[in-house]
Order: sequence, then structure tokens, then C-alpha cells
Amino acid sequence: MRERLVVIGGDAAGMSAASQARRRRPPERLEIVAYERSRYVSYAACGEPYHVAGYIDPLDRLVARTPEEFAAAGIQVHTRHEVVAIDLAARTVDVVDLDGGRTFTTGFDQLLVATGAKAIRPPIEGLDLPGVHELRTLDDARVLRAVADRGKGSAVIVGGGYIGLEVAEAFCVQGWDVSVLEAANSLLPRTFDPDVGDEVAKAMENMGIRVETGDPVVRLVGSERVVAVETEHDKYEADVVVLGLGTRPEVALAAPAGIPLGETGAIAVDDHQRTEIDGVWAAGDCAETRHVVTGRPVNLHLGTVANKTGRVAGINLSGGDVAFPGVLGTAITKVCDLEIARTGLRESDAHDAGFDAVSATVSGTTTAHYWPEASKVTVRAVAERGTGRLLGAQIVGGPGAGKRIDVFAAALWSQMTADDLSWLDLAYAPPFSGVWDIIHIAARKAAQAARG
Amino acid sequence: MRERLVVIGGDAAGMSAASQARRRRPPERLEIVAYERSRYVSYAACGEPYHVAGYIDPLDRLVARTPEEFAAAGIQVHTRHEVVAIDLAARTVDVVDLDGGRTFTTGFDQLLVATGAKAIRPPIEGLDLPGVHELRTLDDARVLRAVADRGKGSAVIVGGGYIGLEVAEAFCVQGWDVSVLEAANSLLPRTFDPDVGDEVAKAMENMGIRVETGDPVVRLVGSERVVAVETEHDKYEADVVVLGLGTRPEVALAAPAGIPLGETGAIAVDDHQRTEIDGVWAAGDCAETRHVVTGRPVNLHLGTVANKTGRVAGINLSGGDVAFPGVLGTAITKVCDLEIARTGLRESDAHDAGFDAVSATVSGTTTAHYWPEASKVTVRAVAERGTGRLLGAQIVGGPGAGKRIDVFAAALWSQMTADDLSWLDLAYAPPFSGVWDIIHIAARKAAQAARG
Repeated sequence: MRERLVVIGGDAAGMSAASQARRRRPPERLEIVAYERSRYVSYAACGEPYHVAGYIDPLDRLVARTPEEFAAAGIQVHTRHEVVAIDLAARTVDVVDLDGGRTFTTGFDQLLVATGAKAIRPPIEGLDLPGVHELRTLDDARVLRAVADRGKGSAVIVGGGYIGLEVAEAFCVQGWDVSVLEAANSLLPRTFDPDVGDEVAKAMENMGIRVETGDPVVRLVGSERVVAVETEHDKYEADVVVLGLGTRPEVALAAPAGIPLGETGAIAVDDHQRTEIDGVWAAGDCAETRHVVTGRPVNLHLGTVANKTGRVAGINLSGGDVAFPGVLGTAITKVCDLEIARTGLRESDAHDAGFDAVSATVSGTTTAHYWPEASKVTVRAVAERGTGRLLGAQIVGGPGAGKRIDVFAAALWSQMTADDLSWLDLAYAPPFSGVWDIIHIAARKAAQAARG
Repeated sequence: MRERLVVIGGDAAGMSAASQARRRRPPERLEIVAYERSRYVSYAACGEPYHVAGYIDPLDRLVARTPEEFAAAGIQVHTRHEVVAIDLAARTVDVVDLDGGRTFTTGFDQLLVATGAKAIRPPIEGLDLPGVHELRTLDDARVLRAVADRGKGSAVIVGGGYIGLEVAEAFCVQGWDVSVLEAANSLLPRTFDPDVGDEVAKAMENMGIRVETGDPVVRLVGSERVVAVETEHDKYEADVVVLGLGTRPEVALAAPAGIPLGETGAIAVDDHQRTEIDGVWAAGDCAETRHVVTGRPVNLHLGTVANKTGRVAGINLSGGDVAFPGVLGTAITKVCDLEIARTGLRESDAHDAGFDAVSATVSGTTTAHYWPEASKVTVRAVAERGTGRLLGAQIVGGPGAGKRIDVFAAALWSQMTADDLSWLDLAYAPPFSGVWDIIHIAARKAAQAARG
């Protein structure tokens, strides 16, 4: 019997799944059809800010595989095709061919929902004015790059999350005056503890980027096009505004169709990426996953998670058996030379999850202190009082600082204590760390705090 | 009662121990006296090649603390004082004041042996010729820097281990013609699998450094001073020769005194750094430690291990109770932009230790492949057949490659399987890795190999 797999969404999760399924099942046993409403599939959205900055050219370097390459591999990809409805009883989807204008209904035996996330658009007046941009798709990146290249003026970034910071770097290196406005009281408010966010803000200000927190945007002003951003307490002239206000899972198809959502508002799945509906799978930004430290469902919008859960879905829906172990929310970004990374729980997350948490923050250098390129690094480690179990970490520092977060991720994965980590045999040479790595020092302080 | 602690050897292990003991016990309860035969204590030997290279100036930036600073902290340090005998029955040591010329005997209640390691000097003719150098002490570094600065000519490095490679970089950046001669069939023969050593050799040759392996040096030639190095099959003109032939534990004091050695030839200690003699401790290069993967005694000469075991000894001999969990042999070095790192067991070590080991070698990029500074990285992961347990890893690559070894170290510490590691939530952004880090890819291949 030849089965038919329909994939809704042709980005990381969807195409990872399709590729895994194709590798495991030949075309005569499994037909694979993917529908993607944009013009692109399988592209590296995380690279887009760096195209805007001018680091990566041309833009299509961000496209990992074209529809033609998928076709040659036996995966039918239809771009500019939007699935507009799912009928679980009939096992069909309704598809609009956006360029051709026709709508058709097509059947599936298995369905993968990989619809991703959509930008949050709060009820702020003026969001639709010309000159107001987002950075989600490759087309967005193309437009923003043209804007950045054209004239140098004032760029106002609304939202101080990962995308906001990356766009701030892009416009900064392109010679613009940049302001980042974050409504919360610190930068990166959804992922970093406030004092770490403050350290990022301070470093950005030293780069000449204006950072304002705790003053929500109320209105974008302009008639022909945006000319200013008004906050509760201030007003910023703007030649361009970029919104980075976060994302939420795109479940506008799944929810009405009757695919159950979980407590996070994303599609509920088990560790095989199965939804509660037989033969229906979900992966990527639109699906929940499990947090390894708390054991609770979370919904993260990260390329790593999309690729992994897509892979898991693809293996399982083609007859394999692999369980996704979950996530830690490990993430890294940079603003020019400043590296910013996190994993696991913040102190506040840990309290919310019912842990009696303590934290320790230490500063040191990325290399031996006498190395000419030594730069400052700050590490915050969160641990459970009493047991000393590590719960999370955050790092801010110069080159070489950020990827150290992976050691904390490995430690969290194995439920190491801070004391364990403080003795771990990490690599040392003067160009790379002190003889006691800043990780050791942070872990030791966290262990002390957990005992105290 | 006031006890007296005598520390033999004033480098990393000895002074770490002294500092910990001082912090825990006041001078009125514990007198601390350290004897060091050189002119320096507490210096960063690992930084010496970078002084020779001209990266770090002046040399005394490598001195962490001076004898005067120790004295102010209540630790008596006597440099140019060599302990020449230990009498365990009398609880005394004989000390020669190298500058004053007198010899005296002094008592101890507790003794820490931290005599370090000494260079291996094989029976090669001509090793004592002028123009033949080692790089162990700060004085060696001062002399080699003067040599490197003076005239540019041919430098021949005998020995392709860590020090040999670091000195090769130093003379290379100082404008010398550099040859590295390694008697074994590949570079880094004691710490890396041969194919990884070969990759390092290839990269060094691309930097203009000549590398010859498998052709042992038989003779250094010269009358006034060295002019050439003869191997079994070749002859190399040399204006300067630097020996990096490895080290062995310095037990010339301990062994005759009756402090038991272990199977490695270093001083046997338990996980508290206790020798078999009551009140006598050992730490650093002269002492054994336990390998976390094999459980067996090993003797490693690494600054990290010296600092850690010194700290453990200092805590325990002053009434604390901390167990040293052991080592993985994690190490990192670089040759110009090439980073080289390892942890755990090589494939050959694993076989020697009784594991049925497999390995997987993968190549990729340090960053997203489209990032402008993407550079090549090769990772070799070793795992146990059947269980898939990770046993070791080696990494060679461009900037950002080397410290990834710490993730493998954390994985080994927790007995992770290669499969566990292949799903680990590592940090991703295009400037830092591919969406699947090279670690994931290596772990996945190792897991496959372990199953196969």
C-alpha cells in the first residue's frame, strides 16, 4: 500500500520530517507532499539579521534546499500554496494555490502540522504604516536590507528580544542611529534574569545603541510613512521601525480542525510528536515539547527545536521509533562582539516551577587574564537549595563566552549538581580560559549558595 | 596546638594547597612553609610559549602571586631553597639554601609533596650543546624569547607534543623557519589518534611549518653550538633547537624516602590526595589521579589537574573533607588559528582499557556554513560498541572549535551515551554553529557505529 503524507509548512520542522521520512521509505511506499504558503522552503531564518547587516550575501545563501532539489529527492514541495482547512474526518486538507488562484482538496493518510509561529501584533496604533517592518521571512530580510543600505537615519527597534537585538546590530553596523525600546523593565525579559538583561543593555549602550526599558510603546506616528515612535514617557524619531515583539504558535488551522492544544496554547504532542489524533503529527514552533528540567510542557520557537522535532516526527511517521528527550531552552545570540546565551531555568522560572532556587553571578575573563584578547564574561548559575542541583545558567561576555553555555546544557541534561560541575575536567590553555574556567567558578559559587 | 605544614614545590599544586589551608586555618593553628628551588612561585607555565611568541609582555605577567604576597597572606615561601631529603621517621626535611649555600633540617607535622615533573632527556648525543633549549621555567621562557627576538633562522623543535606545537607557533610568528620532528608516526602521539595527529600536521604545513614524523632524532651536531639535528634518515640545519620530549613525574625525593609510588610511577594517593604515609600528601604532576572513564590510576601533567588536586589537598590537610572526582585528560592547545583539543579515551586507549570501542570522524564548520568566518572542524568521537557509551573525543579546527571539547567532557563525566549527546539542547545561532552542532553530528555517527 502506498501512503500519502501531507506536510503543512515547508520550513525547518516540515522539511526535516519530510527528508527523514523519504530516507526511510521509498516513494513507492510513501508519497510526500509539502505545502508552503511563502515562496521559500527550508531556509535559515536565523541568518536573516546577518543579511540585513551585510555579512551574508546573496540572500539565497540562506536557502538550504530548493523545491527543485526536494523534487529530485522525491519530495513534492508546493510553494505559494496555503492550506486553509483540515478535515480530520475526511482525512483531507483544503489548499489555496496563491498564484494560480484555485482552491483544491487533497487527501492524506498521515499529516504533519508544521505551521510554525506568527508574530505578535499588539494593539498599537500605526503598526501598518509604511516604514514599519518585521523580520520573519526571507522577503522581510530582502526588504530590510534594502532599507538599511539605502539611507542612514534613525532605526527604532520595538522589542528587546533576540530578534530585536540582532536587528539592532544589523542597523548599527550599517551606520544607523539605533534605539531599542523594550516595554519590560529589562532587555530579553522572557529569557534572561533582569540583572543579566541590564548587563546586555549596558554593553549595547557602550556600542552606541540606545536602549530604553520599562516604557511601553503606545503609538507609531506618521501619515505617509512612520516618522516617530511614542512611548508612555517619550518620543523617538524614526526613519524605520522594526518590530520584534515575540511570536506565538500558529494554530489557526489545527485548533478549529479539532487537533487538541496543550496548556501552552501550542499543539499537544507526545515524545514521538504524535498529536492526539491518529496519524496526525506536529513539530516545530507550533507544537509543545517537554522541558527537561521541569518535566512540563513548553512551547519554544527556536530553530534547533524545530529541526529536532521535525526529525523525530519524520522518523516516527515512517515507521521508526525515536523519543524526543525534550529541551532546555538553550539559546545564544550576539550583538557585535557581545555574546549572550542561556539554558535551563532562570531564577524566576525555577521559583515558578516550584524549586527553592538560589543563584550566583560571577565575572571573569574568557581567557587567561594575561592573554591579550581577554574579555569580560559574566556567568549566572541557578541551583536548587539543599540538593545543589543545577537548574539553569546565563552568560554574557566577549568572544568565546557564549558557547560555554553548552557545558551547562550538558550538566542540566544529566542532572549534575553545581558541585559536580565545579570539578569537571574542562579544557584549559591561556588563549581559551583561566586554569579554573569561569564555569568552574560560577558552579562553585552556586554550590556555596545552595548549601548556605 | 600549632601544626606545621611543609610544602615541597611552590607552583600550582603546592601554592593552591597552601592558599586553601591558609584560608581554612589561621596562622596560630597552622604554620605554612613552602620551599621552591627556582626563583619563582605560582606562575602560569602554560603561558610561557606565548611570551616567546611575543603575545604576552612582560614575562612577569605570568606570575600570579609573588613570595611577598604570599608572606602578607601568612604563607612563608622560600625560593631558591631545594628540599634534598625527606625523613619520614623523624618528620623532617633537609633543605639547601641555593643562594646562601647552607643546608638545614626542619620539621613538619604535615607534608605536601608537590615536586611536579621533569623533562625527559633521552640518550641523544649533543643535548647539552649551546643553542639547545627546553621550555619549562620562566627563566627558560626569558631565554627563548631573547633567542627568538635576536635573529631569524632555522628553529628545530624536537618532539611534537603540546609544548612542541606551542613553541613551533612561537618561532613561526617570530619569523623563523620552523621544523617539528616527532619520532612517532604522527603528531601528538601520546594524546591523539594518528589520523587526528595527521590532520594537525597537514594544517601546520599549510602555515609553513615543516613537520616530519616517524624519523627519530639520533644526534644533535655542533662544536661551539648546535648547527644541525640528525635523524635516522635526514639532517636539519638548526640555529636553535627546542626540546619538547615529554615529562615524567619528579619522584626523586619521595621514592627514596619511602613514600609509595603507584603503577604509573607517580606517587600513589587516594581521592583526598593522601599518600599511604600518615600526614603526607601529594598533588600535581608528581601524583597519580584516577581516570573517570576507566577508573584506573593515571599521571597527567596538566595545570588544571595540579590546581585541582592542590586545592583538594589543601582543604583536606586543614581539616576539610573533599574527594577529587578524577580526570578525563581534557586538554586544548592551538597552533596559530588551529585549535586542537581532546578528552577521555582515544580509540587505542579504549581498547587498552578493555572496551570494545568504535569511533566516528566527521567534518563540518565551526559556524553555519554560510557564515563568512566559517572554518573547518573535524570531530572524532569514541564510543563503546553495544552500549553506545561515550568514551572520548578529539577536535581539530578553526576558531571556536576547540572549547567544544568541554561538552564531551561533561558528557563523559555523566556517562552519557552518544545517542543522548546527539539530542542534547546545544546553543545555536549562525555565528556559533550549524543548527545541528558538529557535536551532534559526531555523536550521531558514533551512536550508529556503536549499534552497527
